Amino acid sequence: MNNARTATLLMYCPDQPGVVAAVTDFLARHGANVIDLDQHVDRVEGVFFMRVKWELDGFALTPEAFEQAFSEAIAKGFEASWQLHHDPNPIRMAIFVSKIPHCLYDLLSRWQSGEWRVDIPLIISNHDTLRPVAEQFGVPYYHFPITAETKAEQEAREIELLQAHDIELVALARYMQVVSPQLIQAFPERIINIHHSSLPAFAGAKPYHAAHARGVKIIGATSHYVTEDLDAGPIIDQGVTHITHRDTVQDLIRKGQDLEKIVLARGIWAHLQRQTLVYQNRTIVFG
Amino acid sequence: MNNARTATLLMYCPDQPGVVAAVTDFLARHGANVIDLDQHVDRVEGVFFMRVKWELDGFALTPEAFEQAFSEAIAKGFEASWQLHHDPNPIRMAIFVSKIPHCLYDLLSRWQSGEWRVDIPLIISNHDTLRPVAEQFGVPYYHFPITAETKAEQEAREIELLQAHDIELVALARYMQVVSPQLIQAFPERIINIHHSSLPAFAGAKPYHAAHARGVKIIGATSHYVTEDLDAGPIIDQGVTHITHRDTVQDLIRKGQDLEKIVLARGIWAHLQRQTLVYQNRTIVFG
Amino acid sequence: MNNARTATLLMYCPDQPGVVAAVTDFLARHGANVIDLDQHVDRVEGVFFMRVKWELDGFALTPEAFEQAFSEAIAKGFEASWQLHHDPNPIRMAIFVSKIPHCLYDLLSRWQSGEWRVDIPLIISNHDTLRPVAEQFGVPYYHFPITAETKAEQEAREIELLQAHDIELVALARYMQVVSPQLIQAFPERIINIHHSSLPAFAGAKPYHAAHARGVKIIGATSHYVTEDLDAGPIIDQGVTHITHRDTVQDLIRKGQDLEKIVLARGIWAHLQRQTLVYQNRTIVFG
Amino acid sequence: MNNARTATLLMYCPDQPGVVAAVTDFLARHGANVIDLDQHVDRVEGVFFMRVKWELDGFALTPEAFEQAFSEAIAKGFEASWQLHHDPNPIRMAIFVSKIPHCLYDLLSRWQSGEWRVDIPLIISNHDTLRPVAEQFGVPYYHFPITAETKAEQEAREIELLQAHDIELVALARYMQVVSPQLIQAFPERIINIHHSSLPAFAGAKPYHAAHARGVKIIGATSHYVTEDLDAGPIIDQGVTHITHRDTVQDLIRKGQDLEKIVLARGIWAHLQRQTLVYQNRTIVFG
Repeated sequence: MNNARTATLLMYCPDQPGVVAAVTDFLARHGANVIDLDQHVDRVEGVFFMRVKWELDGFALTPEAFEQAFSEAIAKGFEASWQLHHDPNPIRMAIFVSKIPHCLYDLLSRWQSGEWRVDIPLIISNHDTLRPVAEQFGVPYYHFPITAETKAEQEAREIELLQAHDIELVALARYMQVVSPQLIQAFPERIINIHHSSLPAFAGAKPYHAAHARGVKIIGATSHYVTEDLDAGPIIDQGVTHITHRDTVQDLIRKGQDLEKIVLARGIWAHLQRQTLVYQNRTIVFG
Repeated sequence: MNNARTATLLMYCPDQPGVVAAVTDFLARHGANVIDLDQHVDRVEGVFFMRVKWELDGFALTPEAFEQAFSEAIAKGFEASWQLHHDPNPIRMAIFVSKIPHCLYDLLSRWQSGEWRVDIPLIISNHDTLRPVAEQFGVPYYHFPITAETKAEQEAREIELLQAHDIELVALARYMQVVSPQLIQAFPERIINIHHSSLPAFAGAKPYHAAHARGVKIIGATSHYVTEDLDAGPIIDQGVTHITHRDTVQDLIRKGQDLEKIVLARGIWAHLQRQTLVYQNRTIVFG
Repeated sequence: MNNARTATLLMYCPDQPGVVAAVTDFLARHGANVIDLDQHVDRVEGVFFMRVKWELDGFALTPEAFEQAFSEAIAKGFEASWQLHHDPNPIRMAIFVSKIPHCLYDLLSRWQSGEWRVDIPLIISNHDTLRPVAEQFGVPYYHFPITAETKAEQEAREIELLQAHDIELVALARYMQVVSPQLIQAFPERIINIHHSSLPAFAGAKPYHAAHARGVKIIGATSHYVTEDLDAGPIIDQGVTHITHRDTVQDLIRKGQDLEKIVLARGIWAHLQRQTLVYQNRTIVFG
Repeated sequence: MNNARTATLLMYCPDQPGVVAAVTDFLARHGANVIDLDQHVDRVEGVFFMRVKWELDGFALTPEAFEQAFSEAIAKGFEASWQLHHDPNPIRMAIFVSKIPHCLYDLLSRWQSGEWRVDIPLIISNHDTLRPVAEQFGVPYYHFPITAETKAEQEAREIELLQAHDIELVALARYMQVVSPQLIQAFPERIINIHHSSLPAFAGAKPYHAAHARGVKIIGATSHYVTEDLDAGPIIDQGVTHITHRDTVQDLIRKGQDLEKIVLARGIWAHLQRQTLVYQNRTIVFG
């Protein structure tokens, strides 16, 4: 929305007095005009988390110089883990889909209309079904059929392709395949999935059928980072909608799809804004 | 709200043509002015459900005469299960509590202020903690301490007491004891519990701790009829609230309590209005 | 979802005993298997409303025969207003847009993916901006530039075009032009608009700017039938989302767009399902 | 929840580089262990807002010493407005009511159960109706009948009484009287009202009747600081609930009451936690 170039720092370290003062002082000394700062202390774990965003205009340090100076001045002493992001730099995102198109349409629309500053260089699918959608939006579509026998090999090719396209973020837009550890390890905390229930309720397959059978009065959707435990990764966002006894499984699927596309989009948006930081399987989503 | 005396019929039967016509025709012939009718067909199960409410003013049948006439004219032929309720007749409700008072305060306030037409002849607790609250509202308080050894005997005494007071409905207002089968069987589909999560997520003990550990972004509460499967009974109502990483377990408990009292009250209200009908562990909640 | 051919009757009349019995009896006598029935009595206005849906398989009456028989048997005696709809019959819907594309993308996606049984023969706009989106989805796009001088003439041409395409429903998908009485009268209760606030709050232009200035903590969107009073037509659906002081006007716009497309879609869906009936500027939305 | 003694600083000033660094450095130098820090920059207005909370254990400055040192070191140079609050210090709150009791019950329950650390030394009402509720909870109840003629005089007596009891915060718990400027000026940004609509929709009297007449599908409640413009003060919190055409005005009132008590409580809670800061008729509610 704003064309000023900015940098965002995400960090955490053992909680201790003086971290905020040290970091903001460091930034001020190098000419940063801080435009957003959010911090959080997990008092139980004793961990301090911070996100700071500042204008690059007038800031004295290149990313390389920052790395060295920040490590020396702050990170070493406070034992901090940190990431620096220079934006706007459209993040390069790949989309994985199967046969159900609503999330794909939604993500492509946000990209094509310019609602999001993101590049989508490719779409990967285990089916050829949605190729026309990709073509209509002018995005290359790669079909990798997957069977139990070919899965490891096909995923290895997918990883190569993603790396060749310099992909940072992978959106699983109702991709109906369990992603294997090799792919997850290649993109740690950089694969976002949409699960069609309010996790941990109804993890696994056919959650709407399970929800209907249980007679719930609320259904949900969950966007989360993918980890090796199925549907158990760090949650970024969740949404729900009320249902009634009148709603059939088909109604749940239909109403759920509206949730899924919005909740997936909110999860991706938070990542694109560099608002997320994962710690011990939970996601800090800074304001 | 309305002083007109009314009757409500809840029924279900195998789905077949002509049920609505037969029932409404039956009521019209006996002088009923129908003021509310809601029906639902479960197409998968092939079951027809209906709730009809009519004014008693001008209606020709006493409850006894209704029983005979309706059985002959409708229930037998359609193989219908049914209940007839004459209202307003304040339903007699008992409250079970332990040590956490927010739901108790909320229910007593609704009763004392006249928001609900309900009688609350007694409160039962496994602790003596909340006796002052009961006394303040002028409701008799019975303390039944429960240990593994005394549980069966104490519950037997509770059942006697409930029956002696002609109790129809039992509200478990954060009663932290598993209710045993004998009590459930004495009040089938007439015990409403509030569980402090959005079931089936986090069934069992300490759901807020579990929710915090899982890093969810939404917490919920569920009012449901109690069955012998713990936290697995037919759901009447559910509510949720958004939380963030800033919320501690204590915050979840605090925010959750607001949900719990509202969702328990909505579940009880639906029962008091004769809007609920349980079929195969799911609750039809008529409009 | 279901391929069985069905008919839906929407009706209202002065409230009086026996209406449900008469209608359901009429349908049963002509072989209808009722699969959905919802009724509502407005006790203050003294009006009875009903929606009945039945399978056409086995039903004895053609639409023409129904008209005559129903008028004779029911409508005259009860002074009923009624509409009969035969479905599935994809409803023919036109979309009006200006320059903001998110609702357009969303509606076209639902149509193209087959989520909705609807035909979209054309898109009309007062700008040429979104022609590429229409072309990408293969839908004819008509550009009618509008100035104060040309408005009446251009709208007359639009009406002709809509009628030539046998359009039943018009969706204003963020169409930033006040629609004039002649167009509204040509499509009474058949133009659905999305307003980007929770009406009646912030009617008129720039509601997000007004919401931000007022410091609200919730923003909303409203789908409603268009009437000659600006933003005052019968509401079909509304949705809201929580915001905070951190949200700028740009954030409100972004978050609001997610609401707008979902709430517009829900409003249109209700119309497509023949669930809506307007009475005295309020919309009955049957279950 | 936590017994550690803490201090909270709320401040704002013209946005400029180095504020966070200066404040956190100031606190660190005097031995503060910051446990919560939230800041916000209104980029349009060019104003910087901050809330910092720290443990008093180990902090070197008394409130008086803080005043002088902070003014010198920070406030003068940055032209900052600020408030310092020492907690836990139960805030002294008065409740104003008329005849509708649900909010009163709710607030008294939160106080009596210890859910909130707050003192409630008195209740003031323009009617004698709810005296029994106050007595039941053991809170003194003062009845000030108000007519057009007596209003100024009665409010003057109310102000005296509030000041005599050292009241900081006034909760209007469905107090059905317009509060006049003299009372508002005596408690600036310290009177919280609950309005029974989602402001700015349906300001003024009988909002549920107006909402029903307009045919909305959502009703709301708003807690806000009272200013001299009726129902136009800075909003703290808002909540909504979905309704349908089946809901009568009585249903709206009933459902709305559940919203009102929760939204009023959330607004008061935010104030008690020193999370609120008013700037130009909008409320910053820190996380």
